[in-house]
Amino acid sequence: MKVVVLVGGVGGARFLLGVKAALGLPAIGEAESEHEVTAVVNVGDDVWMHGLRVCPDLDTCMYTLADAIDAQKGWGRVAETWSVKEELAAYGAEPSWFGLGDRDIATHLVRSRMLRAGYSLTAVTEALCDRWRPGVRLLPVTDDRVETHVAIDDPDSGEGRAVHFQEWWVRHRAEPKAHAIVPVGADDAKPSQDALDAIEHADVVLLAPSNPVVSIGTLLAVPGFRDALRKTSAPVVGLSPIVGGKPLRGMADACLTAIGEDSTAEAVGRHYGARGSEGVLDGWLVHTGDEAEVPGVETRAVPLLMSDVDATATMALEAFDLASAVKQR
Amino acid sequence: MKVVVLVGGVGGARFLLGVKAALGLPAIGEAESEHEVTAVVNVGDDVWMHGLRVCPDLDTCMYTLADAIDAQKGWGRVAETWSVKEELAAYGAEPSWFGLGDRDIATHLVRSRMLRAGYSLTAVTEALCDRWRPGVRLLPVTDDRVETHVAIDDPDSGEGRAVHFQEWWVRHRAEPKAHAIVPVGADDAKPSQDALDAIEHADVVLLAPSNPVVSIGTLLAVPGFRDALRKTSAPVVGLSPIVGGKPLRGMADACLTAIGEDSTAEAVGRHYGARGSEGVLDGWLVHTGDEAEVPGVETRAVPLLMSDVDATATMALEAFDLASAVKQR
Repeated sequence: MKVVVLVGGVGGARFLLGVKAALGLPAIGEAESEHEVTAVVNVGDDVWMHGLRVCPDLDTCMYTLADAIDAQKGWGRVAETWSVKEELAAYGAEPSWFGLGDRDIATHLVRSRMLRAGYSLTAVTEALCDRWRPGVRLLPVTDDRVETHVAIDDPDSGEGRAVHFQEWWVRHRAEPKAHAIVPVGADDAKPSQDALDAIEHADVVLLAPSNPVVSIGTLLAVPGFRDALRKTSAPVVGLSPIVGGKPLRGMADACLTAIGEDSTAEAVGRHYGARGSEGVLDGWLVHTGDEAEVPGVETRAVPLLMSDVDATATMALEAFDLASAVKQR
Repeated sequence: MKVVVLVGGVGGARFLLGVKAALGLPAIGEAESEHEVTAVVNVGDDVWMHGLRVCPDLDTCMYTLADAIDAQKGWGRVAETWSVKEELAAYGAEPSWFGLGDRDIATHLVRSRMLRAGYSLTAVTEALCDRWRPGVRLLPVTDDRVETHVAIDDPDSGEGRAVHFQEWWVRHRAEPKAHAIVPVGADDAKPSQDALDAIEHADVVLLAPSNPVVSIGTLLAVPGFRDALRKTSAPVVGLSPIVGGKPLRGMADACLTAIGEDSTAEAVGRHYGARGSEGVLDGWLVHTGDEAEVPGVETRAVPLLMSDVDATATMALEAFDLASAVKQR
């Protein structure tokens, strides 16, 4: 089976572990198999820092699927050291609020050097994965620069300004109200041809329970990408990131508020919409006990807590099952 | 007194400690003083590695004068960690034979970012020294790219090729015979105006006992720099890097052989030559027991082993003394 999964960072990476397990693949690493998993990964969190190209979502997926992630934090490398960060701080080099670990920096050095030499982010990601062997093909949604910016009132001066998503999310912990969230560069971005091809030839497409605004939303903002989802013969099934009326991971509600949506499974489902009208979904999985009515979309309620790989694999199996059901409809 | 010292890396940095001490300055760090020490530093060893601009001689001087050097190795940071290097090796990223420590990498990140933003190496070095306070003004001889390359027979294939100085020196430990040593880019380089001004207004100019070919030789290869030395009203005194018929630090003889010079104090003195003819020296200090006759140059034999700061300060005082003598002549 050919499975394409649209993902962001931490939640998306964990969901991929479950998708692999659901297909009988090892959650960690690669193995020979008739199944193929392709993850189309958000790049809106990507940022140049200290002259290094940092791709948090791609790296979180790569490290997670290679068991090299700091599982407690959910991002960055296990057994990380922090000498470079200490030294950058001693130089007064900004930004000082972003945690770049030493081991992680090696990844950024390899990536930045290749990007500057003219390789695409797709090619760079493939080269990095040649070491990590995640067992999933990781494709950035675009090779172009698309960076999510957030309009806030500056916490110090009170003046309105736009900051990179990372500054809002990491430095300010999403506390200043987001007046708008804009994927800067998306209008001019070309979607990854590899990603479009994967969607076209997929047996099923899943939307991971990632942030619907700054992860999945940024993917959908790349011109042509939404069309590819709408045109594929594969069923498209999403999983709600809102569980028990709360975001699966913190602060997603702040993003939904910014785009004028409620933080409910129904609101997110309606925001994605039905392929039968203007949207991208055929099926929508919400958490047991949550209710969602999304016109034109088959909805089911199943446990959606990714407490471990087995529970996550069960979620993926439920998604495959819903995909079969809508496919036969 | 205004002292200008022409230096390379390890030997030059140690000599600067002695020059400061000879002037009553603290060897480490800065202090208010009527004296000014300016070091004009070789850039021929500089290299882009992993997308980072590495300036070994500037950094060795900076770290040494701030007591942040790994004193045992003579280069790199004390209490260094090596996570990035391990990871780069795991990626198979070349070059793998050059030791970039984590703390050191922070310096290169700050430098590379500023260079890419358009700052000159002079300005970058000043910014880095704002943290380290070496108590010596460190000036790269040029803001342009001048990199020493060495023509060798490849140790594996036997074919002739030109490699960066670092590859010959660090990777191959200067073992393949150097057929030629060329400061690539020197012909088109502009000397640092700050360095020219410092030489013009100096009370004394010293040539540290650094490598006469790849350190001092590269400085002299920058057009206009040799002229500045020849024109200044300050006396110019050099210290022999050949002590007891052997290089003060290993492998300098391989460089002298490459340019067809003997590894003797006299040969190096003659190679620099007298200001009275086509050269740059007024005075030449050789080690006690070494003999050197350099036409037109006043030569004295004094202990030239930099065994500690006191011994090195005594060398500097001997150089000042010889400078006074030739000035009065």
